Amino acid sequence: MRRKGILVVVSGFSGAGKGTLMKNLIKNYDNYALSVSMTTRSPREGEENGKEYFFVSKEAFEEKVKQDGLVEYACYCDNYYGTPREYVETQLGMGKDVILEIEIQGALKVKEKFPAALLLFVMPPSAKQLKQRLAGRGTETPEVIEKRMRRAVEEARGIESYDYILINDDLEICTKELHSIVSAAHNSIDRNEEFINNMRQELNVLVKGEK
Amino acid sequence: MRRKGILVVVSGFSGAGKGTLMKNLIKNYDNYALSVSMTTRSPREGEENGKEYFFVSKEAFEEKVKQDGLVEYACYCDNYYGTPREYVETQLGMGKDVILEIEIQGALKVKEKFPAALLLFVMPPSAKQLKQRLAGRGTETPEVIEKRMRRAVEEARGIESYDYILINDDLEICTKELHSIVSAAHNSIDRNEEFINNMRQELNVLVKGEK
Repeated sequence: MRRKGILVVVSGFSGAGKGTLMKNLIKNYDNYALSVSMTTRSPREGEENGKEYFFVSKEAFEEKVKQDGLVEYACYCDNYYGTPREYVETQLGMGKDVILEIEIQGALKVKEKFPAALLLFVMPPSAKQLKQRLAGRGTETPEVIEKRMRRAVEEARGIESYDYILINDDLEICTKELHSIVSAAHNSIDRNEEFINNMRQELNVLVKGEK
Repeated sequence: MRRKGILVVVSGFSGAGKGTLMKNLIKNYDNYALSVSMTTRSPREGEENGKEYFFVSKEAFEEKVKQDGLVEYACYCDNYYGTPREYVETQLGMGKDVILEIEIQGALKVKEKFPAALLLFVMPPSAKQLKQRLAGRGTETPEVIEKRMRRAVEEARGIESYDYILINDDLEICTKELHSIVSAAHNSIDRNEEFINNMRQELNVLVKGEK
């Protein structure tokens, strides 16, 4: 039985530690493929094309949209961000579980197109810790921290659209929980219809053969 | 955050290896409690009261039913079998994940009373292997084997009432999969409403506090 890949959408508050979690997941398990988004924003220092993002022109992005080449896309601060469809479908076809790290609007669009997608929401153990983590980065002004906290309030309204939450307190535990959620999904009845139907046919043949 | 126990119903074809799987689960993880059924049938050689079953009289069983003291019960071959409610509720309250090993009719009754229960169906990798395992026990007549195979055909019709399947090929892998399914369920949105609502309240307080 060839195992089909599962599309996994990971969202969560800024400061919840999604990036570190994804890196640890990829390091610990070999069944995952991390989707790289496409964007029209300029690369920041140290960012590489194809690693953090695929950096493209506005024209190239809009052409991609026309060709239905994106699973989802959105516009923030005058820049486009989107998920290239080809990579996702190729990896799923190869049996990889594909992770998309995107925000809630994108997550809901993915769920519409891929109803079998798993939607995960990552949170810190408490709001207080979220604020501490955002402040602890030391790179953000109080205004940016407040903006992110306000955004967290907004995003928290949409959590019920997700299937699972992950509380990122201990990185290793959280990584294991993420992996358990995806593993469990491979055992769901919906994802095993073919196996179940084959079993029924085989049983029928064996029982009839005995008569 | 105190973790609440999950009620896990395990069914599956006779010969699928449920008993061995349960033993291995209990051996490998400490968050499970295995429910012991109550029956009016006589103990077989080597069976102990309170271990394989609670052996009671027909009168005692019917009294238990009257008191609503059973989660589910059924009658086979003129004997009653049922799941005592008290043990289940006590263990769930202590945060244990409680395993009920019961057949499909019982499973559906449990799901009615406990809609949050997880229903798992254990199968061998193929129908052929099921037959080989039943024959391999060496203790059953061909008639009994055929009867069990026919029963498997019947039971296979109801698999879609379950949430997950487990394919018991390698015992250790299957045990891990079972554990992943239950672990994942602890992260479902439904089971974390309280945490999510607390997070929302905390976020609101922190954001308002900043004004």
